[in-house]
Amino acid sequence: MCPVPNGDAEVGRLAGSAGGPARAAVVGTGMIGGSVLLRLRDAGLDVAGWDPDPATRRYAREQGFACPDTVEEAVADRDFVFLCGPLPSLPGMLSRVAAATDEDCVLTDVGSTKAALAAFADTRGVGHRFVPGHPMAGADRAGVASASPALLDRAAWVLCPDPAGVVAFRRLAPLIIDVFRARLVPMSPTQHDTVVALSSHVPHLLAGALAGAVQEAPLRDAVLALAAGSFRDGSRVAGTPAERTANMLLSNRERVLEELTRVTDYLDKLAGAVRAGDAEALTSRYRAAAAARTVLAGRNFASRERAFPVAGDADAEVAYLWELGAAGGYLSGCRVDAGTVSYIAHLPADAGPV
Amino acid sequence: MCPVPNGDAEVGRLAGSAGGPARAAVVGTGMIGGSVLLRLRDAGLDVAGWDPDPATRRYAREQGFACPDTVEEAVADRDFVFLCGPLPSLPGMLSRVAAATDEDCVLTDVGSTKAALAAFADTRGVGHRFVPGHPMAGADRAGVASASPALLDRAAWVLCPDPAGVVAFRRLAPLIIDVFRARLVPMSPTQHDTVVALSSHVPHLLAGALAGAVQEAPLRDAVLALAAGSFRDGSRVAGTPAERTANMLLSNRERVLEELTRVTDYLDKLAGAVRAGDAEALTSRYRAAAAARTVLAGRNFASRERAFPVAGDADAEVAYLWELGAAGGYLSGCRVDAGTVSYIAHLPADAGPV
Repeated sequence: MCPVPNGDAEVGRLAGSAGGPARAAVVGTGMIGGSVLLRLRDAGLDVAGWDPDPATRRYAREQGFACPDTVEEAVADRDFVFLCGPLPSLPGMLSRVAAATDEDCVLTDVGSTKAALAAFADTRGVGHRFVPGHPMAGADRAGVASASPALLDRAAWVLCPDPAGVVAFRRLAPLIIDVFRARLVPMSPTQHDTVVALSSHVPHLLAGALAGAVQEAPLRDAVLALAAGSFRDGSRVAGTPAERTANMLLSNRERVLEELTRVTDYLDKLAGAVRAGDAEALTSRYRAAAAARTVLAGRNFASRERAFPVAGDADAEVAYLWELGAAGGYLSGCRVDAGTVSYIAHLPADAGPV
Repeated sequence: MCPVPNGDAEVGRLAGSAGGPARAAVVGTGMIGGSVLLRLRDAGLDVAGWDPDPATRRYAREQGFACPDTVEEAVADRDFVFLCGPLPSLPGMLSRVAAATDEDCVLTDVGSTKAALAAFADTRGVGHRFVPGHPMAGADRAGVASASPALLDRAAWVLCPDPAGVVAFRRLAPLIIDVFRARLVPMSPTQHDTVVALSSHVPHLLAGALAGAVQEAPLRDAVLALAAGSFRDGSRVAGTPAERTANMLLSNRERVLEELTRVTDYLDKLAGAVRAGDAEALTSRYRAAAAARTVLAGRNFASRERAFPVAGDADAEVAYLWELGAAGGYLSGCRVDAGTVSYIAHLPADAGPV
């Protein structure tokens, strides 16, 4: 784990239920979980970690973290628990942590798909205090040695509020915004999974196909010797740990396959224009594609404040939040004060009103 | 155009046929051509440029370059001419330049495909002094203002020697190696076109398909807001000028479509494993793909010298050179001395003997 950068979290706003600093636990202290742990400690929270791997627990203790031998001890009496283990472990761990924590303990996770886990939480009766989450950060690495508080700094961080869990969302959102300086993107679990299929999962499929095909090609050595930037960039995430990529893709199967057809349809049109020698069609399709890159290069946002009564219509509040995320917007503030919850929202300046 | 970095070219080895410094001309002084021009001047060559655009010619003159109004004046009495215009202009320009230059003037180009132009040069009877070339460098930009001598520094630079043109190759190779500090990759034109289909052209298709599909997706704004590194990298070259990408793909149609099927076959296998929920197959395919990335990250080369009699079997010399390129190797030296041509060759340490 690396040194902690300057944190500008307002720790006073993150007081725990017992009056002292908020108490948080991180379950699974690999690359992402370790980074969360470092950042929470930097922000002045009372933190504990746990990992199924004894060596990782030992390492965390050497870094000065409380890291008991059982997950139950680690999460007892905590205000917030972050589930940061591998995707397939999350349902089982969510049940275990839910059973070991109080009703006012907010649970969240950092897994790369959300719909299945959100549904699981509902069936287990913890949907009202589990807020599915997904920070958009990562690296071609894994393991606690790759953890760094900078990894999550200013990341886009999806949280999935639900009418039944809006109170938990309002408690977790300020922590995510303040501690991680995050752009908090509120979305429904299914919106999230559709969006990441295109923004992350399908790109992993394309990168794997490109690198895999070259690996099997007769002229492989010459191709790699002449690898242009286009190949290097296009195949980069094929170097990500294979199990993690497989877990990610399999956890979002239906949506990955559905969004993949969008991309292969466009690919077929490009290939058709190449086959037909149709320079005009090819150029116009590349111009359309370039428009997406222009948006990525920089977008103007308009900010506005939006308030809801704390005891009001949770459906309306959540509908507003989901719509904000679907329109490419994000939150930079969430404050509950005198019966009102106020959000500071940022929306692409060219989007319609939300 | 930007300032010139330190050049370590041995100008003495690049003497022109008239005894003074070698005389070179660059036809088409956009991003690549302008970069070639700057670098040649830095190495002490006597250079002239020409561009069909009067404003670009004016700009080159303001930078202190000789830049006459006609291409015929620019290339007259030159030892080397670099054709750096857009791909579709190259056949016409090759004919024009060939007619305006002497028999001992070596012609080369920097276009991104080679087989068609090499065949054209043969039909026009200039195959013996035209050496097809392709420096593997570029950027998401175009135009003379993007030219920079650093752009081509230490690039992999393909030249396509031919038995009929081996003398021209032996003259051009030292210039490319010394002036640009290039890793010179010798290949046949068809090998080159097959290799760049996978190392550059198909990656452009995948990037275009990814960015284009997202641009048309209902949740486009949310996808771009959550664009992970995988999307950013995977779509980067979709931001390249559309006409240039279209020209490049169309100039290598058959091979692009053929190599694309390798990639879509691998993609189908990945998607099939996702559909079947087969984590093992998915993981093992990603492991294979990651092997290509490991090679990219760094490869050991073994160097050896190889000599041929200048008046010997050109077929054997060229066969050796083509094989070197196909095996992922490159040249860092080419010297003609006392009836012998000596190459310093570098071959991946894990490759068989060449």
